[in-house]
Amino acid sequence: MTTTTTTTNTNNTNTIAVLHGAKDLRIESRPARHVDEFDAQVDVKATGLCGSDLHYYRHGRNGDFVIREPLAMGHEAAGVVTAVGKSVTHIKPGDRVAIEAGIYCTSCDLCKSGRYNLCPNLRFASSAKTYPHLDGTLQTRFTHPARLLHKMPDGVTFEQASLVEPLSVVLHGSRRSGVRAGHHVAIFGAGAVGLLAASVVKAQGATKVTVIDIDENRLNFAMEHNFADNIVLLPLGPRPTSTAESLDASKKTADSILAQSTSNGYDVVFECTGVETCMQASIFAAKAGGKVVYIGMGTPNATLPVSAAAFREVDLVGVFRYSNTYNDALGMFAANKLASADSLVTHKFKLNDSKQAFETLSNGKDSSNRPAIKIMIGDY
Amino acid sequence: MTTTTTTTNTNNTNTIAVLHGAKDLRIESRPARHVDEFDAQVDVKATGLCGSDLHYYRHGRNGDFVIREPLAMGHEAAGVVTAVGKSVTHIKPGDRVAIEAGIYCTSCDLCKSGRYNLCPNLRFASSAKTYPHLDGTLQTRFTHPARLLHKMPDGVTFEQASLVEPLSVVLHGSRRSGVRAGHHVAIFGAGAVGLLAASVVKAQGATKVTVIDIDENRLNFAMEHNFADNIVLLPLGPRPTSTAESLDASKKTADSILAQSTSNGYDVVFECTGVETCMQASIFAAKAGGKVVYIGMGTPNATLPVSAAAFREVDLVGVFRYSNTYNDALGMFAANKLASADSLVTHKFKLNDSKQAFETLSNGKDSSNRPAIKIMIGDY
Amino acid sequence: MTTTTTTTNTNNTNTIAVLHGAKDLRIESRPARHVDEFDAQVDVKATGLCGSDLHYYRHGRNGDFVIREPLAMGHEAAGVVTAVGKSVTHIKPGDRVAIEAGIYCTSCDLCKSGRYNLCPNLRFASSAKTYPHLDGTLQTRFTHPARLLHKMPDGVTFEQASLVEPLSVVLHGSRRSGVRAGHHVAIFGAGAVGLLAASVVKAQGATKVTVIDIDENRLNFAMEHNFADNIVLLPLGPRPTSTAESLDASKKTADSILAQSTSNGYDVVFECTGVETCMQASIFAAKAGGKVVYIGMGTPNATLPVSAAAFREVDLVGVFRYSNTYNDALGMFAANKLASADSLVTHKFKLNDSKQAFETLSNGKDSSNRPAIKIMIGDY
Amino acid sequence: MTTTTTTTNTNNTNTIAVLHGAKDLRIESRPARHVDEFDAQVDVKATGLCGSDLHYYRHGRNGDFVIREPLAMGHEAAGVVTAVGKSVTHIKPGDRVAIEAGIYCTSCDLCKSGRYNLCPNLRFASSAKTYPHLDGTLQTRFTHPARLLHKMPDGVTFEQASLVEPLSVVLHGSRRSGVRAGHHVAIFGAGAVGLLAASVVKAQGATKVTVIDIDENRLNFAMEHNFADNIVLLPLGPRPTSTAESLDASKKTADSILAQSTSNGYDVVFECTGVETCMQASIFAAKAGGKVVYIGMGTPNATLPVSAAAFREVDLVGVFRYSNTYNDALGMFAANKLASADSLVTHKFKLNDSKQAFETLSNGKDSSNRPAIKIMIGDY
Repeated sequence: MTTTTTTTNTNNTNTIAVLHGAKDLRIESRPARHVDEFDAQVDVKATGLCGSDLHYYRHGRNGDFVIREPLAMGHEAAGVVTAVGKSVTHIKPGDRVAIEAGIYCTSCDLCKSGRYNLCPNLRFASSAKTYPHLDGTLQTRFTHPARLLHKMPDGVTFEQASLVEPLSVVLHGSRRSGVRAGHHVAIFGAGAVGLLAASVVKAQGATKVTVIDIDENRLNFAMEHNFADNIVLLPLGPRPTSTAESLDASKKTADSILAQSTSNGYDVVFECTGVETCMQASIFAAKAGGKVVYIGMGTPNATLPVSAAAFREVDLVGVFRYSNTYNDALGMFAANKLASADSLVTHKFKLNDSKQAFETLSNGKDSSNRPAIKIMIGDY
Repeated sequence: MTTTTTTTNTNNTNTIAVLHGAKDLRIESRPARHVDEFDAQVDVKATGLCGSDLHYYRHGRNGDFVIREPLAMGHEAAGVVTAVGKSVTHIKPGDRVAIEAGIYCTSCDLCKSGRYNLCPNLRFASSAKTYPHLDGTLQTRFTHPARLLHKMPDGVTFEQASLVEPLSVVLHGSRRSGVRAGHHVAIFGAGAVGLLAASVVKAQGATKVTVIDIDENRLNFAMEHNFADNIVLLPLGPRPTSTAESLDASKKTADSILAQSTSNGYDVVFECTGVETCMQASIFAAKAGGKVVYIGMGTPNATLPVSAAAFREVDLVGVFRYSNTYNDALGMFAANKLASADSLVTHKFKLNDSKQAFETLSNGKDSSNRPAIKIMIGDY
Repeated sequence: MTTTTTTTNTNNTNTIAVLHGAKDLRIESRPARHVDEFDAQVDVKATGLCGSDLHYYRHGRNGDFVIREPLAMGHEAAGVVTAVGKSVTHIKPGDRVAIEAGIYCTSCDLCKSGRYNLCPNLRFASSAKTYPHLDGTLQTRFTHPARLLHKMPDGVTFEQASLVEPLSVVLHGSRRSGVRAGHHVAIFGAGAVGLLAASVVKAQGATKVTVIDIDENRLNFAMEHNFADNIVLLPLGPRPTSTAESLDASKKTADSILAQSTSNGYDVVFECTGVETCMQASIFAAKAGGKVVYIGMGTPNATLPVSAAAFREVDLVGVFRYSNTYNDALGMFAANKLASADSLVTHKFKLNDSKQAFETLSNGKDSSNRPAIKIMIGDY
Repeated sequence: MTTTTTTTNTNNTNTIAVLHGAKDLRIESRPARHVDEFDAQVDVKATGLCGSDLHYYRHGRNGDFVIREPLAMGHEAAGVVTAVGKSVTHIKPGDRVAIEAGIYCTSCDLCKSGRYNLCPNLRFASSAKTYPHLDGTLQTRFTHPARLLHKMPDGVTFEQASLVEPLSVVLHGSRRSGVRAGHHVAIFGAGAVGLLAASVVKAQGATKVTVIDIDENRLNFAMEHNFADNIVLLPLGPRPTSTAESLDASKKTADSILAQSTSNGYDVVFECTGVETCMQASIFAAKAGGKVVYIGMGTPNATLPVSAAAFREVDLVGVFRYSNTYNDALGMFAANKLASADSLVTHKFKLNDSKQAFETLSNGKDSSNRPAIKIMIGDY
């Protein structure tokens, strides 16, 4: 290996947190993956946990994707380069890097045209979609194609660099939505994704950002940490018993949101809950010519008021991960454009305590009842 | 009036076909509307009938819009200018013009930004949405703001100029979809709108146009007149009894379309039927990164496979009428870019025979069983 | 007039600062223009002076446009509505409004498609391009089409609302350039326009803003007031004696700028000086695939390194005024997105002291040697 | 090699036409380049010659790029696959393919965002820009990364597939220009590139295509083969002696073009000559809000009427090669969207007669005085 890699750390012991099945998370020692010509190895310093990690932890699967062999979770990560393959020039051992988890093929039509997030050959670290699975970043020696490692600017923390992954999703969504300075934006869902969406559109000049949720604590958090200009608490009404009732309730929900936020309609609406009534209300809350961005994917199918969308040319724009976002997002952190994002990191755990981290995430709060928004596992 | 208008025809008798209620269509004589400073008067030579005209004729209403006073139908029209107001300079009596039926306000945000089709103050000739209603073009002296009259290039017929209206809808849809040379396009629905969509995308360089319908005659018409490169006949299966069944059937329909047309997925899909299963199948038939354009609006609400759309970033784009299309569409006819469109005009009636025209449209065919695709009423 | 307007102030005396020729500025009393059906009258509270005002003042002309009759200057203005025509509904007497100075026709192709700034029939208040001229806003009772008056949000000052005009130019330029979050932007020229450009791109998430000028004081001002992340002082070299020398010097200038700002090239460059060597250096300073926005128009013709632009697909984008910017810009002030812009207003004068205001602008500084960046004339 | 490639033709003799210096073209026998894991080898059937090939042939250099070692010309090519590396799946021996000549890196920011034509690491077959040079396609066994080989649809000829390369340049230019159905397009230059531009914009629905040149024969060719709707012959006037005179002459040229073509200005202008006066006239011939696409690059610097461009927001868009065009262009040939393009191939030569081919290209015509537009070298 001396002929093909440059290393600063010859200790190649790799500690890894592997999921063997639902709730069966084990800390193991495994050899690190070999560092090939175009690869690099990273000492992972921080990994943020996300909803899909939690699904795997709870159920051993995420939707249709079932764990068929032990798999390390984690794909929101950053660390320090420890070795690089012989053809790697843009980074070197010692560099701090954010890790882009998806390995796209570079040669299909979608990759060639810049939409590599849609690459049909994509393999994503921590996902069980492809087999053999590709381990996630919950390990101490993570080997990955070097082209997917992005140098961190000075002053950016490992936690911020880990947040770049979920931030990328909403940055990508905001680009697809055409959000711009002066726009009014509504966001359904005050979780990590929704609040990052709020950060991103504010950084792009949105002049009114309304955050909507059913959880008053989350909304208060959003106001306190300056994510939102307005908040709207949705009441938990009786479950609708028919499509007509559901759509009628959603229209009323949207009207109430507009009234409470003294809005005539939003230029862009981010739907980050995946809940059908929120998907419906998003359309009604958008102004004519506006856009709805679907980020939260809960139910795979939903009944939508398509005429209310089409007659007002409210476009429905889906978002699947991201492309070409990492450097911009890192730059935004470095330029202090996302000041409130730091507040999202509510808990930090050592890699050895990964199980406790997942349990806290699963509970949505810690033993002191503090809500868990973004949990980091790393070198703490 | 001599001080404010220039006229070639002082005979101001206006014959008009007025709908008093469902099936109650009467030919009447009414004074023409006064020609104000910025208006012009047109001797209408051809009016094409459309689906919304038919709804009013059959039911005295179109969805939520009910006829509250006698109303002339017709909004796909062209004619000869007979008088212009004193401030009108771009047209003069004797000019042949296509009539843009919607009167937008010019001063709202949507008008100012070029999306006047979404103007909240829009009044549309032949629609009962606004009250008092604005009469349509089924009259011999139609008065209208001159800015909405577009000079017809030499060689363009009145029927072609009338077709500019439905053509505008699909041209607008094709612009919103980003369709471009080399694209593969699927079109659900082989009626007038679907076939005009086929014409338009072919004129823009689409290299594969697949037209899909349940009616074999329409599909054969599409092939014979060179609207389609491929046709796919959909079987009429048993009605699905659940959402899951419906979506499963739609997925299979899309797979079958792709197999029959040897396609890997369409860059753009035009949904021109308004049928829920076609709306669903449109999403499955689009390729990753593609677009679905919803033109046909049947049911106001539909259950859609939103994950299948979002995970592949298939955007759902609605179309409501058009803006800034008339001159381009007239130019396309003049340059012979829409050769097959002429074949759509299957029947022509005199204004006095309007009732017969509507009945033929209502039957979908004439007494010789010839299908009625686009019916013109005019100076025949 | 009682039948057509609603007024709060029946005192219709109009004091106006009129330019009769070069340096011949007189304060006069003239009747206010009649308030027609769609007009409104405004008690102007603040007017910012701009470079074109100064050209007229100094030379009695601005480029090809010569003052042929006494003309009031001023087109960056805001005030309080005093009367509205009978068909005006969106504003009423007492409302505070920003004034959009250009009257476009609403019916040409460019107006209809949302690019009304390019309307061939445009008449612009304070410009001598059209004849009879249209008086500017340096008057106490300014009558204008109401559709061009934009309600000011609470908390926005008249000075800010006046700044909306030059801000609109750069906001329009930034939209045309596609600047977005994470971009690096270079700005040639640290005058009012350049610094507003800096404000606007920062508000849109630009992460590195480099301002370039030959005047150290202006650059220091830019840093102190947080317009710039970097500044680069250009030395005043010997005047190039040939095109080759000029281009060679411009390339070196660009290289020096990139070196001093540790940049690999800018995504967007705003050229706000109109100086040929800066136009050239802008192209060299842009990265491959970037854009150069030409805002400052000095010499009508310039020798440009077209191959250096084309081979790297650096597009050259001109900007002429603005369209659809006012509400967004007012919203940005209201949301405190343009905090540093206030610092641009260095001097304020009463309408009666207009001559002194123009002299100060002409000198570029006041009697205390304080630089004059943006001078306001108003109700002080 | 048996372990890494699949071959149909074990005869690995490679005949190659190599340029040793100005006019020193030799037919040689050289071993073919090794077929690596992701490579394929192609039996080249047709190569079109282009202006840059001619520059190298005449001068041993093309602008700044000097031949430092014997170099094969040719980069507009197609052929039959004879061998593929072990990891190649999308093509197999026997497949007919169009060859995309530029090898981009896939991992820089420009490649990742879909603009791989601007890749700073690009190596282009037949160009002396990079060293060691990369041989062009004038050889019988051309080895190349398989991802750059595009399967030819049935019915497309090798000559058409070779034309895809210059066609890609204008297709890329037309995409960057936003040309669309209904647009009026002017094209300066009736050579191969200009006429391909005409083909492409017609295929995209341009309704008026005016071709401009100083050579009457070329213009007549353009009309006869249906490339143009109008042609304008430019007179060869006296050489301007100053910048002012040159710009004045260019303005008059544009006015004359508009008058002769009864145009009010063109939506898009393609400048395919690289002549300064045409670059200037292009700006004057564009309508307000239009675009000028610079394709022909002659002099590296040009004096342009920047105010005339900026005040009317006529954007100047450069084009450097192409990205993501091959499949679309091949599809356009297959769908018969580019019928007139075939007429451009005026001469065909065997590889052994390459020198004669270059001499014919150099003369601009053959010994019978027939003009040489596009010359093919291949398996004839």
